[in-house]
Amino acid sequence: MSVIVNRRDLDFMLYETLGMQHLFESPRYGDYDRDSIDAMFDLAQTIAEDKFLSCASKADTEEPAFIDGAAVLIPEIKQAIDAYRDAGLSSTAYDSDIGGMQVPMMVDQALKGMFACANTALFNYIFLSQGVANMLNACGSQALKNEYLAKLVDGGWLGTMCLSETQAGSSLADIRTKAEPLADGSFKLTGTKMWISCGDHQITENIVHMVLAKIPGASSGVKGISLFLVPKNRLNEDGGIGVDNNIALAGLNHKMGQRGTVNCLLNFGEGGDSIGQLVGDENQGLANMFHMMNEARLSVGMAAVSCGLGGYLYSLDYARNRPQGRHMSARDPSSPMVMICEHADVKRMLMTQKAYVEGAQTLVFYCARLIDRQSLMTVGEQRQRVELLLDLLTPIAKSWPSEYCLEANKLAIQVLGGYGYTRDYPVERLYRDNRLNHIHEGTLGIQAIDLLGRKVRIHSGMALTLLREEMTSTFDEARQMPNLEGYVSQLEAALAQVESTVKAVDAADNPQLGLANATLFLHATGHVVIAWMWLMQGLAAQRGQAAGGAIDSAFYLGKLAAVAFFYRYELPKVKTDLLLVAGLDSTCYDLTAEQFIGV
Amino acid sequence: MSVIVNRRDLDFMLYETLGMQHLFESPRYGDYDRDSIDAMFDLAQTIAEDKFLSCASKADTEEPAFIDGAAVLIPEIKQAIDAYRDAGLSSTAYDSDIGGMQVPMMVDQALKGMFACANTALFNYIFLSQGVANMLNACGSQALKNEYLAKLVDGGWLGTMCLSETQAGSSLADIRTKAEPLADGSFKLTGTKMWISCGDHQITENIVHMVLAKIPGASSGVKGISLFLVPKNRLNEDGGIGVDNNIALAGLNHKMGQRGTVNCLLNFGEGGDSIGQLVGDENQGLANMFHMMNEARLSVGMAAVSCGLGGYLYSLDYARNRPQGRHMSARDPSSPMVMICEHADVKRMLMTQKAYVEGAQTLVFYCARLIDRQSLMTVGEQRQRVELLLDLLTPIAKSWPSEYCLEANKLAIQVLGGYGYTRDYPVERLYRDNRLNHIHEGTLGIQAIDLLGRKVRIHSGMALTLLREEMTSTFDEARQMPNLEGYVSQLEAALAQVESTVKAVDAADNPQLGLANATLFLHATGHVVIAWMWLMQGLAAQRGQAAGGAIDSAFYLGKLAAVAFFYRYELPKVKTDLLLVAGLDSTCYDLTAEQFIGV
Repeated sequence: MSVIVNRRDLDFMLYETLGMQHLFESPRYGDYDRDSIDAMFDLAQTIAEDKFLSCASKADTEEPAFIDGAAVLIPEIKQAIDAYRDAGLSSTAYDSDIGGMQVPMMVDQALKGMFACANTALFNYIFLSQGVANMLNACGSQALKNEYLAKLVDGGWLGTMCLSETQAGSSLADIRTKAEPLADGSFKLTGTKMWISCGDHQITENIVHMVLAKIPGASSGVKGISLFLVPKNRLNEDGGIGVDNNIALAGLNHKMGQRGTVNCLLNFGEGGDSIGQLVGDENQGLANMFHMMNEARLSVGMAAVSCGLGGYLYSLDYARNRPQGRHMSARDPSSPMVMICEHADVKRMLMTQKAYVEGAQTLVFYCARLIDRQSLMTVGEQRQRVELLLDLLTPIAKSWPSEYCLEANKLAIQVLGGYGYTRDYPVERLYRDNRLNHIHEGTLGIQAIDLLGRKVRIHSGMALTLLREEMTSTFDEARQMPNLEGYVSQLEAALAQVESTVKAVDAADNPQLGLANATLFLHATGHVVIAWMWLMQGLAAQRGQAAGGAIDSAFYLGKLAAVAFFYRYELPKVKTDLLLVAGLDSTCYDLTAEQFIGV
Repeated sequence: MSVIVNRRDLDFMLYETLGMQHLFESPRYGDYDRDSIDAMFDLAQTIAEDKFLSCASKADTEEPAFIDGAAVLIPEIKQAIDAYRDAGLSSTAYDSDIGGMQVPMMVDQALKGMFACANTALFNYIFLSQGVANMLNACGSQALKNEYLAKLVDGGWLGTMCLSETQAGSSLADIRTKAEPLADGSFKLTGTKMWISCGDHQITENIVHMVLAKIPGASSGVKGISLFLVPKNRLNEDGGIGVDNNIALAGLNHKMGQRGTVNCLLNFGEGGDSIGQLVGDENQGLANMFHMMNEARLSVGMAAVSCGLGGYLYSLDYARNRPQGRHMSARDPSSPMVMICEHADVKRMLMTQKAYVEGAQTLVFYCARLIDRQSLMTVGEQRQRVELLLDLLTPIAKSWPSEYCLEANKLAIQVLGGYGYTRDYPVERLYRDNRLNHIHEGTLGIQAIDLLGRKVRIHSGMALTLLREEMTSTFDEARQMPNLEGYVSQLEAALAQVESTVKAVDAADNPQLGLANATLFLHATGHVVIAWMWLMQGLAAQRGQAAGGAIDSAFYLGKLAAVAFFYRYELPKVKTDLLLVAGLDSTCYDLTAEQFIGV
């Protein structure tokens, strides 16, 4: 079995659960059908296994090195990303008018998931660059697009996001990087950027940095931030690579995971001028960057799912092939050992992983489907509704997988026992890789405030109303099916508790206290949304059972068992957490720093 | 502040909560008083900080290397362990009749906790050796003790446990290492042992291996296992180091954490005879080894607590000194930033760590107190009661910290944000170190079966009755205090649910199904026990508040807030889990391997 993708399950999620086939009926995606997408999946799986998975361990062990002012990577990284580009995969997600293959976002996420699962450190080079291209396309001037867009779209150049500084991580209001206007309309950038993933390498001959900086005289805080495109190498008149743009590599960060992703400090304007171009309007930098951030957050969610999936598939394969111990009923020690997947606790650990990973994966695809629905709509109320729902789900799709698919990775190690924590097996690397996703692109706490402080409130709570409408249509369908009625009642009650919790927080006299337990709200609402994803899968499994042959019966039974697991073992957990949020519990909020330690 | 120990809290737990001062009234511990123990703590803290903490990062980065058939460690490891020995700390835990300092076990755990917190990889060398000495003292012949015990007690030689083999980890029934009797009463050992912590090094001039093996003709399964002492180097007639005993280092394991602990494969009888001596009776190997295993399990619990404590203290210190962001009410971006410990979600993460770590630490000390109580008793019914209670609590004291203090480590990383996952800060190492504790000395699943399948059932459930008696005496006291009554009711209900769950499992027709959710029972019962530890601490804090001056008021308020946190945020979680256990939920148990993946 493949340890980077379960193709049967991918088909189940995309087609049977989320109806991707209907997209092919639209003119926008009319060039595609299931056969052509299957061929693309085959190609991606081959490259992901042959080029990405094959160097995952080496990229982890042999980190990028700082040599003569440059980051030097193992050659397999360039070979893998070149193979990805040569197969035409760099351009899958873009519209055809800018040179893209214009596949549905659902397909794009499925494709990228294989690469993230095979080697999440290498996947970072790809997804960041895609964000840069989309942002440039959305906000950049035509002149800037003419210079840079085609190269980004076809993967010839890679891109980065340069937001954080050493003194300003989550707090972007406090960045100090300066952009001084020059006579020709360009800007001179000076300052140090921290945590820059993919900030220096020789994979492509140029690197396109998207940099947040302040123009002298701009307001303090986030209102004074502008966005600049600053290339590693300036371009000549003919668009070719020109002179070095004086972005100095000031140091490499050494992380616990995702070690193949070079991560660095960059000094802009060291030893000469770093020249950049304004992207979008002055002082609109943060808003423009958020075009990329939302996309990046979904990608982080997908990366977290992929790390979890890698651990699940590997530990499942191991459990099916590793003999150890006997059933409790087999007292004779000379009787043969059984495979460890026969032991009840191993089954529980596998099921927990399945429920977390496949639930989260469905949410990522569901969000991708919302993007596809948007793409098929003209501007208007309907489209705005889809946007709002996507806005609501984005912090969940980023955070829930990073919490629960990490938990899945923890269990994957446990299934392997002592082997699980040795570096000869991939599960410990996947666990380390996944731990970063809680922090990348906005920490869990930031996502929680975004959800409870903003997303559930905008337009008088419209997003939550839309969520209820969408869920209700699943409920209506599920009520027609045997054995799903109980889950519907349970989920309806949980959803109602989410809604009443929001009302209670809205009514808080002290808004800070109202948000004090926002992270609990994020986890609980995530559980409700994932329970909905499992209900959808339960529906699809029952439809499949009714229609299908014996070949798929084990698959569908497994899906229905996972639905049962999520509703019995997981969904009941939300109640306590939501009560604490709604009750404005101040146990932690009231504490002073001294009280923690007493000295 | 120290990042390896909170001395104020140590005093609170040992003296104010658990009344260690009363031990000094006994003849056994009459040589000690609080001043002399304080001096010992001072000494230990200094050595732990100067010699153990100082090389924790280096021991992690520069792993033991396999050079010319031997494991070569960084020199700081020997220096640290030599300093520990030179200070006389090797012998603290042993009775004076075998050359020990005979401190209370509570003191010993507190001392060792500082070393485990400073450098858990180095702590392993110490605690394993102590287990070997105790086992030899309990089971070995006088001749064998004469040869080996003094060296083990004074730390001149270190010891190991050799149980697992590549094909037999949790399943010891299947070991293959052979011990053939020789004419002189000794045995010739052949076979390969896997996962041997501290199995080869040059820290001490000899290494004493305790090896499980089978004598030809013995029964199959665990009933045919015997225990042997097999030294790295044989002894001369005069007790000095003799010739090499042919235990070949066959390879090193590379783990995700605790990397300074050399972990290896050993081939016994390679290139010559490996001669060993029987310890205890033939075929009693497993029972004898369990003298060591129970002690080792408590030590693993303490190590897990210590890793969690290290992360908590470090992240607390960081949060009190790292400025970032502003209060939500401070809208002016030019206003100064606040320390991150002012942010509500950071407080929540610190409080969660505090509640897990200090709760678990109290349990470890409580178990140590049970051992001290045993030491003060003659054999008889009272002593048996204490033993039974300790038996019941051991799987919890091993497992709960490894689950929840790991969770604390995850939060410590999160408090530091991006810095948290870089290797420049210790929190990511502590997280990796702690991940091993779920598996060491019996996996979580094994502990769960031990608890629900055996410990709660022996002597008709006597252990659980004893637990209720002990808890009831805390309840009676707490009812006399203001503000604790609500916690008592809540905890009584949870305890009753644990008891009724055991009854339901006892009544199960299928014992395998009864144990299918044993891990949930282990976690839930752990939560009940930790809630009890927090109630004890709440009592002590209220007594301290009533008696104390202003200097400690922040400390006591913090403790009482942590009690509130545990009862509001944590204890409610047990209900759902226990319902699943009592309901013999078969969702996972029923699943076949095929159903997980469908192909």
